[in-house]
Amino acid sequence: MIIEMMKGATQEQVDHVVERAHSFGFEVQLNLGTEKTVVAILGSDTGKADTDAFAVLPGVQSVARVMKPYKLASREFHPRASKVNVSGVEIGGQRIVVMAGPCAVESEKQLTDTAKAVQKLGAAVVRGGAFKPRTSPFSFQGLEHDALDMLARVKSDLGIPVITEVVDIQNIGIVAEHADIIQVGARNMQNFALLKELSKIKHPILLKRGLSATVTEWLTAADYLLARGNRRIILCERGIRTFEDSVRFSVDISSIAVIKKMSHLPVLVDPSHAAGHFAYVPSIARAAVAAGADGLLVEVHPNPEEALVDGLQSLTLKNFEKLMAELRPVAQAVGRYI
Amino acid sequence: MIIEMMKGATQEQVDHVVERAHSFGFEVQLNLGTEKTVVAILGSDTGKADTDAFAVLPGVQSVARVMKPYKLASREFHPRASKVNVSGVEIGGQRIVVMAGPCAVESEKQLTDTAKAVQKLGAAVVRGGAFKPRTSPFSFQGLEHDALDMLARVKSDLGIPVITEVVDIQNIGIVAEHADIIQVGARNMQNFALLKELSKIKHPILLKRGLSATVTEWLTAADYLLARGNRRIILCERGIRTFEDSVRFSVDISSIAVIKKMSHLPVLVDPSHAAGHFAYVPSIARAAVAAGADGLLVEVHPNPEEALVDGLQSLTLKNFEKLMAELRPVAQAVGRYI
Amino acid sequence: MIIEMMKGATQEQVDHVVERAHSFGFEVQLNLGTEKTVVAILGSDTGKADTDAFAVLPGVQSVARVMKPYKLASREFHPRASKVNVSGVEIGGQRIVVMAGPCAVESEKQLTDTAKAVQKLGAAVVRGGAFKPRTSPFSFQGLEHDALDMLARVKSDLGIPVITEVVDIQNIGIVAEHADIIQVGARNMQNFALLKELSKIKHPILLKRGLSATVTEWLTAADYLLARGNRRIILCERGIRTFEDSVRFSVDISSIAVIKKMSHLPVLVDPSHAAGHFAYVPSIARAAVAAGADGLLVEVHPNPEEALVDGLQSLTLKNFEKLMAELRPVAQAVGRYI
Amino acid sequence: MIIEMMKGATQEQVDHVVERAHSFGFEVQLNLGTEKTVVAILGSDTGKADTDAFAVLPGVQSVARVMKPYKLASREFHPRASKVNVSGVEIGGQRIVVMAGPCAVESEKQLTDTAKAVQKLGAAVVRGGAFKPRTSPFSFQGLEHDALDMLARVKSDLGIPVITEVVDIQNIGIVAEHADIIQVGARNMQNFALLKELSKIKHPILLKRGLSATVTEWLTAADYLLARGNRRIILCERGIRTFEDSVRFSVDISSIAVIKKMSHLPVLVDPSHAAGHFAYVPSIARAAVAAGADGLLVEVHPNPEEALVDGLQSLTLKNFEKLMAELRPVAQAVGRYI
Repeated sequence: MIIEMMKGATQEQVDHVVERAHSFGFEVQLNLGTEKTVVAILGSDTGKADTDAFAVLPGVQSVARVMKPYKLASREFHPRASKVNVSGVEIGGQRIVVMAGPCAVESEKQLTDTAKAVQKLGAAVVRGGAFKPRTSPFSFQGLEHDALDMLARVKSDLGIPVITEVVDIQNIGIVAEHADIIQVGARNMQNFALLKELSKIKHPILLKRGLSATVTEWLTAADYLLARGNRRIILCERGIRTFEDSVRFSVDISSIAVIKKMSHLPVLVDPSHAAGHFAYVPSIARAAVAAGADGLLVEVHPNPEEALVDGLQSLTLKNFEKLMAELRPVAQAVGRYI
Repeated sequence: MIIEMMKGATQEQVDHVVERAHSFGFEVQLNLGTEKTVVAILGSDTGKADTDAFAVLPGVQSVARVMKPYKLASREFHPRASKVNVSGVEIGGQRIVVMAGPCAVESEKQLTDTAKAVQKLGAAVVRGGAFKPRTSPFSFQGLEHDALDMLARVKSDLGIPVITEVVDIQNIGIVAEHADIIQVGARNMQNFALLKELSKIKHPILLKRGLSATVTEWLTAADYLLARGNRRIILCERGIRTFEDSVRFSVDISSIAVIKKMSHLPVLVDPSHAAGHFAYVPSIARAAVAAGADGLLVEVHPNPEEALVDGLQSLTLKNFEKLMAELRPVAQAVGRYI
Repeated sequence: MIIEMMKGATQEQVDHVVERAHSFGFEVQLNLGTEKTVVAILGSDTGKADTDAFAVLPGVQSVARVMKPYKLASREFHPRASKVNVSGVEIGGQRIVVMAGPCAVESEKQLTDTAKAVQKLGAAVVRGGAFKPRTSPFSFQGLEHDALDMLARVKSDLGIPVITEVVDIQNIGIVAEHADIIQVGARNMQNFALLKELSKIKHPILLKRGLSATVTEWLTAADYLLARGNRRIILCERGIRTFEDSVRFSVDISSIAVIKKMSHLPVLVDPSHAAGHFAYVPSIARAAVAAGADGLLVEVHPNPEEALVDGLQSLTLKNFEKLMAELRPVAQAVGRYI
Repeated sequence: MIIEMMKGATQEQVDHVVERAHSFGFEVQLNLGTEKTVVAILGSDTGKADTDAFAVLPGVQSVARVMKPYKLASREFHPRASKVNVSGVEIGGQRIVVMAGPCAVESEKQLTDTAKAVQKLGAAVVRGGAFKPRTSPFSFQGLEHDALDMLARVKSDLGIPVITEVVDIQNIGIVAEHADIIQVGARNMQNFALLKELSKIKHPILLKRGLSATVTEWLTAADYLLARGNRRIILCERGIRTFEDSVRFSVDISSIAVIKKMSHLPVLVDPSHAAGHFAYVPSIARAAVAAGADGLLVEVHPNPEEALVDGLQSLTLKNFEKLMAELRPVAQAVGRYI
């Protein structure tokens, strides 16, 4: 941490800052500039102190953190890229892992038909929402436990792993029993109570980026999941909130390169929720693969017109087939396969 | 809802849209423009259908919602301003309600000293965090149940209502037992599982705006709380995420006027979390009162230098005294008092 | 500037950074941390070097600027608040300066009627657009030179200063001849070619904040105007672009406090362009005055229904009268007058 | 345009809206809903009227535009994709057009060395800044006319087209004489005075997206350039301002798909300015090509350490060679070549 003192700060004020640093167990080094004193706080664990603890002291002008607040998710902590193995599917390896399926499980038939089709077309994991966080209380909220049962049947019948979202602590147990990967939705990325409970289980967790979370905050949230030994964490970029109104959320394509540099965790992209319109999904999906993402989360519905949730952003089976055909050469172009 | 068909959409496609509308029980009216057909969907409950249900149909160019998706929180539904009574303190009335106290309860003494002081200086409610949602898992997480006990003692000893945050469903019961007002934090504004449970209780709920929630989304989240009969909902603007980096979050001052026009719910402003620096709190607080906010949520700490959480944004008792002195004439200037 | 070296950076790489610093004439001080070396670049003019000049060197992890890139606009450079005198009207003094008038000058009668009315109601300056930067080329572009003549007549007939916008270098001369204050619009805040020419003249300049400019970038743009000796620079907050869609732009109310701390320049607020709707103007205007702004830029039109530009955000004369009556006690509450 | 009347709006108010529409020459159609009246304004030229012209009328609740405000840039106006031919290089065709070179021209040798190298490696156009819009007045501002001469020599010696930016009206003539493509920078995207002058010449114009411009605003700005017959307009996405701070600007990758759907104009991506760091350029560049962009604008410098401007975001010649090798298979994967 670097603490810039105000012009004219007294020796006493500087000493006070130094004492505070010592009270945390940190070493310091002083730069007596011509105009201002700058205090550098040294140590490998300065992340444990808030910048505020220093910014609040008299005579302090500003405090800047040099080290990132996250640790376990950082590339410095774990230099090699992590691979997450889910029932034989490796995420973060050579294969681009496509997770596909309906936004919400609506019926046994809808789920099974979609699952069979996407599996045949090359999807490695089936997705389907059981508990749906909806912005309006008057909207369809998901089939809940029935949907979990249907997902479990798809898993055992087709031998393909399934992913579904958990929206509160009480359902962690039952979701873990039925699903291979547990998804934390964007709106829960900083639901720390939920993250803490999830860090105690052994299941792979897919952590979606919050609508307005910086990459740094996202990786710090991942630290919550990593804090108790669960190492199977997968990130998922799903678009951030910006002023642009032609899409629902703007995919932050540069986050892929940033994460690959800063973190060891695998990262997927969800083009469907971001775009909000099926017509934009293929372009974003191709971009994600070319950028270096480890996989995709794609919404597919056998009959989007009849979808109870997010029909507009869902691909038909035919469009999904077309997408997979488009993605294969792109994956190959970046040295991977689907 | 207004559905714009593509240039050259066929009669069959238009008919399909009309049928879909009828299947929801809506009436329609067609505008056969010179270039495009526009279909207006009529009815007082079009909010129950997603725009996507139409946007996904063939031949549709765009779908725009005329009515807002929220209903119970709207001024149209409830034309008169709602007032929320909390143990004799009226929120949304003539009095500007100042809720003050430490970000986190750190000790009995810290809480009691602050509570007594702010009560004497004119605060109507005491705030104090028991469960703290922190961005890093390595930071102080709150005194939890001990803090709740301390808050309950402040309440009974000083006869002043207290507010504290609930961060997961499991603790709703115990928080409700100890606190007069239950706060839902910004990061949980769209934790719908939590909102649904809270709608079942009778306690007043203060719903903070999400970091990247539009006013429309915020009022729609309020609908979750209002859906089961709990009418005592209070909103709290606490700054939104923008590109500006001189403060932590940018207070959306125009949201006050927008809410007063669109909704009947009272609204407070939290200048402390928004600014992230005590020096900016008074200016924002005065602005909030002048804009028409019904109250403030202000962080006060007897010794911010020693605060375990958010010391930089906390006012000292002396600065809080100064703030209250500054606010009184502003309240009077807009026909209110503190 | 603080340069963090990578973990494992070589001595040679550190030396290279030090040499680069010396080549700029800066002194350095090294912090040999347990994990990383940190190099502090010292000197009062580090602002003249880009952070990139160091970030690009091998072995460098990150570069953070401690000092702000602006200098002449900073409070450190000029500790006392600047006051700008315009034909007897002092901006930045005790009086809240209200500049009011139509968005665009549409006719002699429209301008004169408005000017007389707002002057009588307490406005200190008359505003009126001659050259209109419009987002669409098919929209009304302003009366241009005819409007300048009308403004000059208002000025001489009523004895009230006038402000109007300049949109390109070629018209600086003629605008300066006719107007007392020259406005630089938000879309031109970083039109550096224009700013450089304006820094050569003696006229007071009102510099609107860019739609997506940080306060730091805004003050750095002000440095362009201050660079050749023109000291009469006035800032104007007019809302920033955010995701919120209930208003046109979100007034960054905290910018007032930030500017008052960081800079010596006076700052106004334009609630009309920000809100985009007259109904929200009074609330924002009161907030601005309470926050500490030195004045307001308000759109007033005798008949907004007939306005060629921005009618929706314009106040009628009656509403302007009401606004002024509301603002007077607020100004008084913060120790000022209108 | 769709005008929603308030609940309880009078017949007189509805009539007033209808009259206003007729005064513009528009037809109307009324929807007498059960709760509200909705007025649809019909006609192919409703873009010429501001929504405000109706929103300001008494009894009006909201006004929504169905048609986009831009016309000439729209796919509806010109269904086939436009191709821009620049001295034999076709932009918008099968070839991915890479424009490469230094951010700023610094010397004859620096420019020529870079130009020769990038040409040999497959760049189709050489870029180089002569007039540099810099955020600080104390930074290097470009070699100006000398740089234009150097660019012209590169063009004639190497037979490769060159692109450079124009920053004010006065220099349009001289820039047009020396360069093949004229660039309008992001900060000038809404410098309408400049756009109007540029629409009068015959040169191809590359219009960068403004930092905070929506795609709709960008295409409306393109209408300014197209308004007088210049059809050779090229768009360039260069990142938008968001809250994310790990890069300078966030490339809006979905804008590529949106533009391809909404407009006929070719679109490039500038990964260098967006990322602000050379390490992120290849990932973003590959993504852009995969998404469907028609080309790239890439900064290359023979010795980034010594660059006077933006060294950190520039690729070395070796890194540029590596990038081109990476891009070729990606281009092929989407049916194109470099």
